[in-house]
Amino acid sequence: MERIFDKELTVLKERLLHMGSLAQSMIRVATKGLVEREEAILEEVFKNEEEVNQLHMEIDDRAMKLLALRQPMAVDLRFIAASIKINSELERIADQAVNICQNTQVLLKYPLLKPLIDIPRMAEIAQKMLNDSLEAFVNRDPDLAQTTLQEDDKLDNLKDQIFRELLTYMISDPTTIQRALCLILISRNLERIGDHATNVCEDVIYMVQGRDIRHPQKAPTPSRLH
Amino acid sequence: MERIFDKELTVLKERLLHMGSLAQSMIRVATKGLVEREEAILEEVFKNEEEVNQLHMEIDDRAMKLLALRQPMAVDLRFIAASIKINSELERIADQAVNICQNTQVLLKYPLLKPLIDIPRMAEIAQKMLNDSLEAFVNRDPDLAQTTLQEDDKLDNLKDQIFRELLTYMISDPTTIQRALCLILISRNLERIGDHATNVCEDVIYMVQGRDIRHPQKAPTPSRLH
Repeated sequence: MERIFDKELTVLKERLLHMGSLAQSMIRVATKGLVEREEAILEEVFKNEEEVNQLHMEIDDRAMKLLALRQPMAVDLRFIAASIKINSELERIADQAVNICQNTQVLLKYPLLKPLIDIPRMAEIAQKMLNDSLEAFVNRDPDLAQTTLQEDDKLDNLKDQIFRELLTYMISDPTTIQRALCLILISRNLERIGDHATNVCEDVIYMVQGRDIRHPQKAPTPSRLH
Repeated sequence: MERIFDKELTVLKERLLHMGSLAQSMIRVATKGLVEREEAILEEVFKNEEEVNQLHMEIDDRAMKLLALRQPMAVDLRFIAASIKINSELERIADQAVNICQNTQVLLKYPLLKPLIDIPRMAEIAQKMLNDSLEAFVNRDPDLAQTTLQEDDKLDNLKDQIFRELLTYMISDPTTIQRALCLILISRNLERIGDHATNVCEDVIYMVQGRDIRHPQKAPTPSRLH
């Protein structure tokens, strides 16, 4: 009995990691399509979305069955609860990768506005955050989760910087407005991927330490666009 | 024993509904502050956010304790799992209401661009979706959940319509760009509230019928901005 349960937990973890690596590859490929201005590259992302959606339902179903049939205690219960939450974050990350592709499709109807520098940087940070959050999950490593979630500020700052820069383009030349808007939306898609990776990190910390760090009392945020 | 468990389930439901009504009021007040151009009104939303954050952690904690200590079966298990998911949707809805306030604070630095018509309509639909999704949850009503989630298309269409209209403003008069961007972001905040209410509906259908309707095979979406 015990050994079957352990095996089921391992399968749950493996399926989640498979979904995580799909989501990561979707971010990478979406950004490649954007940077290389090659619409055909994006097809892979749309194909992966279907697999991610199937995994989303499969993983939830596995987790619910484990809760119902095995009535897990303590550590195992927290692992399964974390899996359900991380599953939902990964699905939303994949959705954001799809949104990047859709925004890129609109963008590619127009000539290049400017060489992309900050957006690929954001994509790199977002991918690394996702990768590290999953590594923290697998290795039950709350320290890695903690350092990873601090990376999120970098994404927020880059997003604001991109916004300000594109605003000046739009104001000085209205023919750039549509393209600039697409890029602003893409930077927000990447920022949201960082938010979801942050949620994964918080779930890992709760899973390992039973500590809920999600809402520290913090100073009010200065007004900026959200 | 049985009676204590039932009482605990009732408390869980009541706390969730309290959080839901807070989230609803946050959308209403944020929109009021926007429409009446009155920054002081927004304060209430920032205050409510703290209570929502506390509830978010409290409800998760209650649900985890019920899973651990009561080892619930079938219907009760699905109810608790749905509570955990709906809890997270409500917290994100409240976040979006806060984002509307932050975007409004920036918007109010500029004179009125145009009387708002479609955004208040979106806010009304989003509030009603949230209200009905919670009613479907309380009454275990999958039919209401099903009709409610269909409302989401209206929000998507209004968001696209707002985008197109504001784009023409921006292109014809660059002095409107900042304000138009704020309004575009607010319309997206409202659209995301609709997405979260849709997720609540899907959770209700799963809770009552054990059917996962989240990823039907659907025709590919036409390119539009996401």
